[in-house]
Amino acid sequence: MDNRPIGVFDSGVGGLTVVRQIIKALPNEDIIYFGDTARVPYGSKSKETVTKFSSQIIRFLLSKNVKAVIIACNTVSSNSYDELIKEFDLPIIEVVTPGAEACLKETKNKIVGVIGTEATIKSGAYEKKLINLDSGVKVYQKACPLFVPLAEEGWTDNNISKETAEIYLKELLNKGIDSIVLGCTHYPLLKKCIGKVIGENVRIIDPAAETARKTKEYLKNLDALGNNKGKAEFYVSDNTEKFSFICQAVLKKVCLAKKIEIEKY
Amino acid sequence: MDNRPIGVFDSGVGGLTVVRQIIKALPNEDIIYFGDTARVPYGSKSKETVTKFSSQIIRFLLSKNVKAVIIACNTVSSNSYDELIKEFDLPIIEVVTPGAEACLKETKNKIVGVIGTEATIKSGAYEKKLINLDSGVKVYQKACPLFVPLAEEGWTDNNISKETAEIYLKELLNKGIDSIVLGCTHYPLLKKCIGKVIGENVRIIDPAAETARKTKEYLKNLDALGNNKGKAEFYVSDNTEKFSFICQAVLKKVCLAKKIEIEKY
Repeated sequence: MDNRPIGVFDSGVGGLTVVRQIIKALPNEDIIYFGDTARVPYGSKSKETVTKFSSQIIRFLLSKNVKAVIIACNTVSSNSYDELIKEFDLPIIEVVTPGAEACLKETKNKIVGVIGTEATIKSGAYEKKLINLDSGVKVYQKACPLFVPLAEEGWTDNNISKETAEIYLKELLNKGIDSIVLGCTHYPLLKKCIGKVIGENVRIIDPAAETARKTKEYLKNLDALGNNKGKAEFYVSDNTEKFSFICQAVLKKVCLAKKIEIEKY
Repeated sequence: MDNRPIGVFDSGVGGLTVVRQIIKALPNEDIIYFGDTARVPYGSKSKETVTKFSSQIIRFLLSKNVKAVIIACNTVSSNSYDELIKEFDLPIIEVVTPGAEACLKETKNKIVGVIGTEATIKSGAYEKKLINLDSGVKVYQKACPLFVPLAEEGWTDNNISKETAEIYLKELLNKGIDSIVLGCTHYPLLKKCIGKVIGENVRIIDPAAETARKTKEYLKNLDALGNNKGKAEFYVSDNTEKFSFICQAVLKKVCLAKKIEIEKY
């Protein structure tokens, strides 16, 4: 047993959808969450910058005595995981592998789509992981840079989000995909709209639930599950007000975030 | 005469539209430009964070021996100018005052619109400045958070940008505005699309040209004009490749940017 908290981080609020799944799968774990709201988004930035920011965040989480870190952000998982496991000596769990595994369970025709930020798609991480797990799979990728700002504007299911999804997803649909990975934590907010565009026959994969399930399995194998009350603490790099508001909406409970100076770590 | 360079900064590439005007108005000035591409955008962030980032940037520009600083970014001009002039002892020129003055020259019915980022609009800086300059003016403001990502996606004049502009600008048009300030350096990229939505009778004000004109006047009054070859150096906080590409497109000349660690300043 290990009663230290689990660290979870994301470039902003998106990772809270992963926290929601962790709370469901692991109700007896305490969580320390960090959202880099002063430097969000990561998805349009370079691998070097994303890795530098992520290292600072893991150093901060270590200062909070976490027993493991979950990278809730697809851009970080895709671009920086290999560097981060070299730098840090603690269990680090990312979202790409669980997302790819969940996708392979769902696909029947082995033609799959992956959507994400520019940085996630450019890294090719999902494609490599999927082909590594099953060399017979065909992967088509597409960056959808407007999905995050649309979700943040709250335009998750109007004409504009629908037309945007049509433009982005058209070429994937033409390839005959039967499942699609939502490779960005914001995209589940557009799930309804994406569903309308891709139709009922294409399955939508959100890596969050599978990530939580894998985290449980992983901690169990290490004999490191906790027996806590499931407390969660939230830290951000910009002001707390907007974050706390969204956090409460996602987790349906009071979330009081604290602001820290992340570049000092 | 003062042959030291002028410092110009922005959260990213947007400020290059201001640089273009400065080069036109002041061909004998050298320029040091900084774009905070690792932490862009500023428009969705808090006043405190925007001011902190801007202070670091001005300290960097001072290390390059600039004689004056032009804040090309509307979000910084709106939120942080008052703090920055307290902190730094050098001439600092912002874009809101020139933008407001240019607008008052154009309006006939004294009903004007201002569009910008969330942070610019929330600050109320344009409204205060306009009313301060002419208490008879009526100002209607609207934040347009999707305009920056649309411009960055290159969707500057398609169906989606048009529908987005219609939603954002509808309430301003209903108020009977006869001129509108583009209170964000990205928005001139959408000028054609905005023009179609607001019609020929509403004048579009881009503060950049007026800011360059005021800078010239200001330096002249200080007897601080330069007599240089008009060299420009570009610095960024994220990788240089993407920036250099856009820079060349905006300024029509070769721009080799250098990456620096801005948080060390």
